[in-house]
Amino acid sequence: MAKQFVYLFKDGDGSQRNLLGGKGANLAEMTKLGLPIPQGFTVSTEACTQYYDDGEVINDSIQTEIMQNIDKLEAIAGKKFGDKENPLLVSVRSGARASMPGMMDTILNLGLNDEVVKVIADKSGNARWAYDCYRRFIQMYSDVVMEVGKQYFEELIEKLKHAKGNAEMLDTELTAEDLKELCVQFKAEYKAKLGEDFPTDPKEQLMGAIKAVFRSWNNDRAKYYRRMHDIPGSWGTAVNVQEMVFGNLGDTSGTGVAFTRDPSTGEKKLYGEYLINAQGEDVVAGIRTPNLITQLEQDLPEAYNEFVKICDKLENHYKDMQDMEFTIEDKKLYMLQTRSGKRTAAAALKIACDLIDEGLRTEEEAVCMIDPKQLDALLHPQFDTAALKAAAVIGKGIEASPGAACGKIALSAEKAAEWGKTGENVILVRPETSPEDIEGMDFSKGILTAIGGKTSHAAVVARGMGKCCIVGSKDLKIDEEAATCKIGGQSFKEGDVISLDGSTGNIYGTAIKTVEATIGGDFDRIMKLADKYRKLGVRTNADSPKDAAVAVKFGAEGIGLCRTEHMFFEADRIAAIREMICAETVEQREAALAKLEPMQQGDFEGIFEAMGKYPVTIRFLDPPLHEFLEGIDTAALAKTVGKTNEQIKEIVTSLHEFNPMMGHRGCRLAVTYPEIAAMQTRAVIKAAIAVNKKGLNVVPEIMIPLISEAKELAFVKAVVVETANKLIAEAGVQLKYLVGTMIEIPRAALTADEVAEEAEFFSFGTNDLTQMTFGFSRDDAGKFLDAYYSTGIYEFDPFAKIDTKGVGKLVETAVKLGRGTNPKLKLGICGEHGGDPSSVAFCHTVGLDYVSCSPFRVPIARLAAAQAAIEDGNVSNKG
Amino acid sequence: MAKQFVYLFKDGDGSQRNLLGGKGANLAEMTKLGLPIPQGFTVSTEACTQYYDDGEVINDSIQTEIMQNIDKLEAIAGKKFGDKENPLLVSVRSGARASMPGMMDTILNLGLNDEVVKVIADKSGNARWAYDCYRRFIQMYSDVVMEVGKQYFEELIEKLKHAKGNAEMLDTELTAEDLKELCVQFKAEYKAKLGEDFPTDPKEQLMGAIKAVFRSWNNDRAKYYRRMHDIPGSWGTAVNVQEMVFGNLGDTSGTGVAFTRDPSTGEKKLYGEYLINAQGEDVVAGIRTPNLITQLEQDLPEAYNEFVKICDKLENHYKDMQDMEFTIEDKKLYMLQTRSGKRTAAAALKIACDLIDEGLRTEEEAVCMIDPKQLDALLHPQFDTAALKAAAVIGKGIEASPGAACGKIALSAEKAAEWGKTGENVILVRPETSPEDIEGMDFSKGILTAIGGKTSHAAVVARGMGKCCIVGSKDLKIDEEAATCKIGGQSFKEGDVISLDGSTGNIYGTAIKTVEATIGGDFDRIMKLADKYRKLGVRTNADSPKDAAVAVKFGAEGIGLCRTEHMFFEADRIAAIREMICAETVEQREAALAKLEPMQQGDFEGIFEAMGKYPVTIRFLDPPLHEFLEGIDTAALAKTVGKTNEQIKEIVTSLHEFNPMMGHRGCRLAVTYPEIAAMQTRAVIKAAIAVNKKGLNVVPEIMIPLISEAKELAFVKAVVVETANKLIAEAGVQLKYLVGTMIEIPRAALTADEVAEEAEFFSFGTNDLTQMTFGFSRDDAGKFLDAYYSTGIYEFDPFAKIDTKGVGKLVETAVKLGRGTNPKLKLGICGEHGGDPSSVAFCHTVGLDYVSCSPFRVPIARLAAAQAAIEDGNVSNKG
Repeated sequence: MAKQFVYLFKDGDGSQRNLLGGKGANLAEMTKLGLPIPQGFTVSTEACTQYYDDGEVINDSIQTEIMQNIDKLEAIAGKKFGDKENPLLVSVRSGARASMPGMMDTILNLGLNDEVVKVIADKSGNARWAYDCYRRFIQMYSDVVMEVGKQYFEELIEKLKHAKGNAEMLDTELTAEDLKELCVQFKAEYKAKLGEDFPTDPKEQLMGAIKAVFRSWNNDRAKYYRRMHDIPGSWGTAVNVQEMVFGNLGDTSGTGVAFTRDPSTGEKKLYGEYLINAQGEDVVAGIRTPNLITQLEQDLPEAYNEFVKICDKLENHYKDMQDMEFTIEDKKLYMLQTRSGKRTAAAALKIACDLIDEGLRTEEEAVCMIDPKQLDALLHPQFDTAALKAAAVIGKGIEASPGAACGKIALSAEKAAEWGKTGENVILVRPETSPEDIEGMDFSKGILTAIGGKTSHAAVVARGMGKCCIVGSKDLKIDEEAATCKIGGQSFKEGDVISLDGSTGNIYGTAIKTVEATIGGDFDRIMKLADKYRKLGVRTNADSPKDAAVAVKFGAEGIGLCRTEHMFFEADRIAAIREMICAETVEQREAALAKLEPMQQGDFEGIFEAMGKYPVTIRFLDPPLHEFLEGIDTAALAKTVGKTNEQIKEIVTSLHEFNPMMGHRGCRLAVTYPEIAAMQTRAVIKAAIAVNKKGLNVVPEIMIPLISEAKELAFVKAVVVETANKLIAEAGVQLKYLVGTMIEIPRAALTADEVAEEAEFFSFGTNDLTQMTFGFSRDDAGKFLDAYYSTGIYEFDPFAKIDTKGVGKLVETAVKLGRGTNPKLKLGICGEHGGDPSSVAFCHTVGLDYVSCSPFRVPIARLAAAQAAIEDGNVSNKG
Repeated sequence: MAKQFVYLFKDGDGSQRNLLGGKGANLAEMTKLGLPIPQGFTVSTEACTQYYDDGEVINDSIQTEIMQNIDKLEAIAGKKFGDKENPLLVSVRSGARASMPGMMDTILNLGLNDEVVKVIADKSGNARWAYDCYRRFIQMYSDVVMEVGKQYFEELIEKLKHAKGNAEMLDTELTAEDLKELCVQFKAEYKAKLGEDFPTDPKEQLMGAIKAVFRSWNNDRAKYYRRMHDIPGSWGTAVNVQEMVFGNLGDTSGTGVAFTRDPSTGEKKLYGEYLINAQGEDVVAGIRTPNLITQLEQDLPEAYNEFVKICDKLENHYKDMQDMEFTIEDKKLYMLQTRSGKRTAAAALKIACDLIDEGLRTEEEAVCMIDPKQLDALLHPQFDTAALKAAAVIGKGIEASPGAACGKIALSAEKAAEWGKTGENVILVRPETSPEDIEGMDFSKGILTAIGGKTSHAAVVARGMGKCCIVGSKDLKIDEEAATCKIGGQSFKEGDVISLDGSTGNIYGTAIKTVEATIGGDFDRIMKLADKYRKLGVRTNADSPKDAAVAVKFGAEGIGLCRTEHMFFEADRIAAIREMICAETVEQREAALAKLEPMQQGDFEGIFEAMGKYPVTIRFLDPPLHEFLEGIDTAALAKTVGKTNEQIKEIVTSLHEFNPMMGHRGCRLAVTYPEIAAMQTRAVIKAAIAVNKKGLNVVPEIMIPLISEAKELAFVKAVVVETANKLIAEAGVQLKYLVGTMIEIPRAALTADEVAEEAEFFSFGTNDLTQMTFGFSRDDAGKFLDAYYSTGIYEFDPFAKIDTKGVGKLVETAVKLGRGTNPKLKLGICGEHGGDPSSVAFCHTVGLDYVSCSPFRVPIARLAAAQAAIEDGNVSNKG
């Protein structure tokens, strides 16, 4: 039998979401529940996929099936397309598996033509309504199906109003005759633009509309929305064809939208709006101000009472807050849609907790109802809602770290630090940031850059600090010499005030009041439940005792990545590291390193103490050495280290790299200069001995970065072990420590069986692993990624969401090979993906022991880990 | 039973090369053949591996086994270590699986001490000889085993000569008393340097010597040699302990080295040298000038005749030209070694052909006897005859390795390596060479020495490298301190240019023009045999009709990689490409591209015509665009393209990349600017149509570079196919063309099943694949690769020899996945590895269809492919 592509509402049910889309499945389910639903049918998501496979064509067999279902619908409705007595009018609406509100196209009133409009005008005795429906249909069809911009039609309306001598008149003030005239003009405009008559055959109209909805699955805003919400392009959308009901038939008709609970707070009360004598789009368009839903009780009490009953029924049936659309046609209530309602993070937490308490949901179900990404918003300052409404967006960038910030523009890290230290609110505005800017970033409320993506230096560091950040803003032009910048054409001097919304990427040219985030009891309750169910450990990436303390507050159970180089950029240390770089002999290098050693030891003691009982993984020096010489005054350095300016310049030149990311860095530094690894080992071991004397029981984890060959690790490990064991023996203490490696180069993953012979743990550095596996640098990818999204080559940013096909395959290979050699091997991830929910789920699936992410993402990771474990459990129960 | 680590010569045979090393296996085999061999035993290569596994210690059980074998040897020889009547003296020599001449250490005369020396002095009646042996032993043992530099001992000899009032006297003029005195002084020097007495116990001496040989397996020159010759570090060396025989017992004693055929030409005649009254090292060291082997017939006719018979026997037995060492002790001949002789490329070809004709070898065996890398020497230029006539010979030496070379004089191996690495042509000029000079020799075009004969170190090594070499030139005087030299009275500074003819021994004081080599009949015959047996196709990488023609001459069967960007750098084109880069709209870009199109079309027509019936793979634009703007005059460009200087500077800035290798290049250019791919498609297709009209039948292969995701290829392919099909339809012709991709990014290999859905062929770009898989850039790796070799982390340059564990795993994965989707998928390789013999063998094994390499490497690839196929066949026959 041929595959079925079209389903009547009465033949489906709510479980068929993947096939029928959310809207279609729920219309079927509501039909099954006996609710008043205008009947219709759903063209499945598989038909959409087929449409794309066939080269954007609806093939003959699907067309036939659609026509057969029109026949069935005509029988059910007792109406016929183009009928002179009882003409059938339908709506054509998209409906994907996951709700994508407003992203795709809709066509109402389909089935109208010059004859049908007369029939319904006569039948209803409401010619104004009939011609209004018709002109809306022509307009909508032209715009959506034929892609004739709707502005041409709006111009004709304006012209008519002018002709009538009242340019300010409302659309509702147009008479039946005006509207009839507009229908004639609209059809003429259609012909002028497209060279053919407006289609009069309802079946031709229908096929055009369905095709248009399929096509809208791949419009730019839909693709962008999918990327934001992890929705695969391969899912496709279903199309729902449903008999029209009319809320605009007069004062006993109306249309509205309502939620079963307050989507802002989660409070259990009916929440919504309606308009009398209107079609659905009028409510959403915001042209007329709608009434609160409770007022419907006065306007149309019977319909209201029925609606309240249906709301209860639906919430109890779906066991979740519902977002519903309804229409009342001459006092009779029709339900047009129900779905789980979108809600704020605070509401999501409250509703989940309430549903447990109401006995509607188990703990596991409630935990799975919350989108982990939403939690971010709770942890950062937000703009005051009223103040935000009054502000204009002057530019946009990539939203890199959430939260709101407002402050004076500082065009250098030095200036940001200078002002920030006096307590001023500062926004650091830079072409890009680099490791030397760390202090200035720390003293800023927000960061704005002109280049870079979500894993650029600015983005990574800002997220770690929990600071609002927008990167890669093409609207930003900086003139450093003049100490000015332009944002979206508007000019600013250093010191002028701007505001940033790191959650949306919006830039505002004025000060906007912010409010601090508040974390309530619901948050704690859900987090405790998450911890109860998750299998994955959650650690944090932190380089300072301050960050470590924040992360512990958010529930981190250890440090998965402590980057030692960040400590080297502080003013008192950079001198010593530069001296080290300028050394010509091992002895000179050791002398410089000796100056750094006590400072590093102090750092580690602070971090060990902040983490208490939790493990700490310390990554040894990773960046290429030239990063420490960027922008230096060679003459000054020459004086400090006792060399000539020429010699220093020669050193700087000799350190230049063509591709620094693939250069002399990571363990390669330890192979060429084993004394660096020895110094760092001494600092770690001495710090552990010191804090353990104070009563802690630290087992430091030393992590060697950028391994691509087992022998590299063996070599550096030998240096570490020799140095550590000597110190431990000298101190006469017992101290356990681990030596492990990052897996961040494809070859390390491919040869993980050999690497695991040397390693006690692996930590997947999926940032670099993604770069090497895809062969592009995240700093440079900005130049072509937009083209990749718009052509649909990429659906997601592989730096934000782990690429399971390529990078994930390497991770799986490494897990399998590594555990094959060493079943006790501890496995974690410390790339940015450690804080991304879908990537956390992947980590759970491949069997890692923990994920590590920036402190502010720890709650997200905890919740995502719990959801992965619960879903995994369900799957096993089913199987 | 415990594993056996030590084998008497009489218990082994020639098949045990892996266990006993080449020297040990051949000594056992010669023993079996009944030849006069001083007896002894071999400590196996497995003992060496065990030594390293045990942390550079010879464990007790192996020590015990060695001692048991000393007992057996004593019984066989009828002599005893330290005996007062018949003391046993032994040599201790390295012997790896593959011959590594001069790379590891040797100790002679072991077993001597103050008492034993008296015994042999009395017994032989030759006190001078006895004490000379003793002082040599002390010196050698101190140097090799205890690493006390030998210069301290040389100084003592000089001092003694001074004291005797004749600083210029030869060592041979020292009396027995002098040598006895030197032994006393040497032992005192030993004690002064090491704080302990020189060991008197022969067993202690023996264990020290064996350990020193094991250790020498990992000295720097041995590691370098292994890297050059693809010898794995895991093989280890065996150690041969053999009873001493003495060629320095007087005028009826002697020692020599000989080949069964001429190693320079391959001519079938005995070829070699000997010295009367000398130990082996004297011949090799080149201190005295030896006699031609034929003269031995006069000096010691019985020994000579026996030797000639043994030579015949060995050649017939091993079916290959043999390189033998012998010693005559008081008229009695002893064979010390036989091995396949190193030979020039020309000799290798002639010998292989002759062995077929003599019925000693099959075609397959003969083909496998030639080292493909050696062919290189045949393909490189010789002196231009006319230019040579005009040049004056200023000196002469012994012609040791044929070929012509011209370059700057380097007076040290370090200088030669330094200059050679920068790409300069260098002639290494030395009094003599020693194994430490190996790297400098490798980086030289030619080698000239003042002392030594045809079997001196310089001569043997240069022939192995296929490098021009003249030795023993009495016309050469070097002043190392002044960094000058005189050749035939003419003075040269380091850096001055000379020319060498290694086939005549002539030295020229000027630069001489060179011409391409002419290849003889043996070459053609072997190449035809290679073609008969190989399975792999051999293509070439060529970007111009000229290169293409050279490659066809060398046997290329197509172009595997034609890089289109090389054409863009020509003066008349770079302007158009810059205009294209500065374009702001698609239209402007297309206008600039339209200028390039006819030029590209012309290039492709030329290449198609040069290749005739053979296929041509054209890779679309690959490098990042900023490469075309390097070092430009922005003001001039501004004028040309009608922009301001500021705008041009902004464009240059905007094109800057942090990691250009991983930036906006390859197919990413075609995704962002599809018009570039469309232009290149038009040029390819129009060119193919044009040449096919002239009677060719070209099927162009369009290759899209840098794919990491199947959808990238699908997108660019759509542009190519649409453009191509339109042109073909317009032209009203039939034209087949293929679209395929490079596999050069790890993700492309990992997802090759999906990529193969879009590709008609894969070409492995193993240069970039190696970079991405290892995570290092070839341009930057120089800073740390030396440390990687010296620590033993890398044994080979992964850019020269394919890394089978990592990169190879990806290639295998891609082959499997790709063929799984599309069994007809054509597979090739176009990275540098395509011309490396061991990598070619890998390509054969994984089942590629062809390799592609630079024109001069085509013969190497053909031969290597044949060897891989033949060895593969042998393996199947065995299994």
